[in-house]
Amino acid sequence: MSIPLSPDRVTIVEVGPRDGYQGIGPFIPTETKIGFVQRLVAAGLSRIEIGSFVSPKALPQMRDTAEVLTACARLPGLRAQVLVPNERWGREAVAAGAGALVFVLSVSETHNRNNVRRSPAESVDEYHRLLAAIPPETAIRLDLATAFDCPFAGRVPLKTTLTLLDRLVASRPEAEICLCDTTGRADPAHVADLFAAARERFPQVSAWALHAHDTYGLGLANVHAAYRGGVRVFDASFAGLGGCPFAPGATGNVATEDVAWMFARMGVATGIDLDRLLPIVRDGAAIPGGLAGGRVRKALHAQPVACVAAT
Amino acid sequence: MSIPLSPDRVTIVEVGPRDGYQGIGPFIPTETKIGFVQRLVAAGLSRIEIGSFVSPKALPQMRDTAEVLTACARLPGLRAQVLVPNERWGREAVAAGAGALVFVLSVSETHNRNNVRRSPAESVDEYHRLLAAIPPETAIRLDLATAFDCPFAGRVPLKTTLTLLDRLVASRPEAEICLCDTTGRADPAHVADLFAAARERFPQVSAWALHAHDTYGLGLANVHAAYRGGVRVFDASFAGLGGCPFAPGATGNVATEDVAWMFARMGVATGIDLDRLLPIVRDGAAIPGGLAGGRVRKALHAQPVACVAAT
Repeated sequence: MSIPLSPDRVTIVEVGPRDGYQGIGPFIPTETKIGFVQRLVAAGLSRIEIGSFVSPKALPQMRDTAEVLTACARLPGLRAQVLVPNERWGREAVAAGAGALVFVLSVSETHNRNNVRRSPAESVDEYHRLLAAIPPETAIRLDLATAFDCPFAGRVPLKTTLTLLDRLVASRPEAEICLCDTTGRADPAHVADLFAAARERFPQVSAWALHAHDTYGLGLANVHAAYRGGVRVFDASFAGLGGCPFAPGATGNVATEDVAWMFARMGVATGIDLDRLLPIVRDGAAIPGGLAGGRVRKALHAQPVACVAAT
Repeated sequence: MSIPLSPDRVTIVEVGPRDGYQGIGPFIPTETKIGFVQRLVAAGLSRIEIGSFVSPKALPQMRDTAEVLTACARLPGLRAQVLVPNERWGREAVAAGAGALVFVLSVSETHNRNNVRRSPAESVDEYHRLLAAIPPETAIRLDLATAFDCPFAGRVPLKTTLTLLDRLVASRPEAEICLCDTTGRADPAHVADLFAAARERFPQVSAWALHAHDTYGLGLANVHAAYRGGVRVFDASFAGLGGCPFAPGATGNVATEDVAWMFARMGVATGIDLDRLLPIVRDGAAIPGGLAGGRVRKALHAQPVACVAAT
């Protein structure tokens, strides 16, 4: 999953169909999910996390990921990826045709136990078993949840994240590594510091990514800080879908359209056609049970008119 | 209005009582306005733009600024400032007791004509007449609206803003200069570039400020970019008040609580007590006719709870 670095081009990984949908209660029909992926690809999103292979009891919304994956395999130009929490589900994903896996574990012990019912050390073992069990050509990304901050333990020291990476990087240095701000409480200085330390410690890793949440409004500030630090891959969710149903009012991932807008204003290519994206975003914001975020969607509905004595 | 630069301290100028209120239709009772200023000061906001001296026909909401100013003169620790669009209203403000004036003009010709019914050149003349007409000890800030982008003309070239500053700086180099992103369409690279060019061209100016709008979600990213570029004074509006009633859905100024939160996370002192600020913010969001923005207000209502397979 290595992406060549370029000063004026970034890749936005659309994670709405996974992180955006997973917390939505009412089941989104499989055909609807496939339709959104098709339209997102047509708007220029070439990498999409189309779902996860996880317990259907834990996340019933994700129970049709194999079907979505099969349908999406036929889409030209799409690099579909699926999230897996352990070896067993990783094998299931590969058996269902997945060519790119996202293995998730949390830096924070408490969060990892809550999220995937394992200690981080046990998840490291799962990762190594997964690598041994799947075809070597399978593209791998590592998602490090709570790399900055944990809902239970608060701020995560840089050293804790780096030490966990010590046990992960060597076995597959070409894996893309995504540092995830699960709570949205990372700040731009923290983002810059962690990526700088990680890139210095692991020069063999060529692909770093940031998974930002916008809960406190810092999504774009953090994306920009990572961009300045050399990161060129950014997760985002169309319509900002991804609010956690257990945290009312806490909106979710940074919105794809907000990230695309910022880079467009900066003159940095994303490959995304905003005019094609915005109608998809509006439909995404209307998914029953979803909690939409982001600002560009609303701003581009408005007609800018000068106010008297405006600044 | 010179503020000493420090690497780990910033000043947030609360502009809600001016930029936040001015677009609100229903008149906010004078006592309510005074009450908010009192509470904001108690929460640590030492600089507040408490209103503007402008035509009450154009902005009826601001018609009681003199009364608010008189009441606020008694508040210890408050540096109140008022916005004025020309010499005449500047003299009125001083006569009413104002010790700190914010003179506003737009870089964009079209915007300046719409906003203050003058060409930028005429506003430059107004500024010089104003400086001649007021007591020399009056603190002065210059607000350059549309310094980055204009709702009519689009992106404003750096040179246009710098050339206008050429005609303003010399007559009062100790004035604080605030570059205003009126439309919210500045991006962090643009913010960094303009402040770098301005600081290089005008080394005699010691106090630069950014007035950010959050319409496209870039408020904090732009604040952070300016901070990295050495800016230490930031306008913000409590509850993110400041949506323009003529632009539905376009929320307004970057929220004070969001800016305070970001700097708190970064370990940069603002002097603001977030625990005291948040109840004020919630009351501000409930002002009839107001359009609140910001994220921290909603996020801190939510209880963060881990979701299964979260990243």
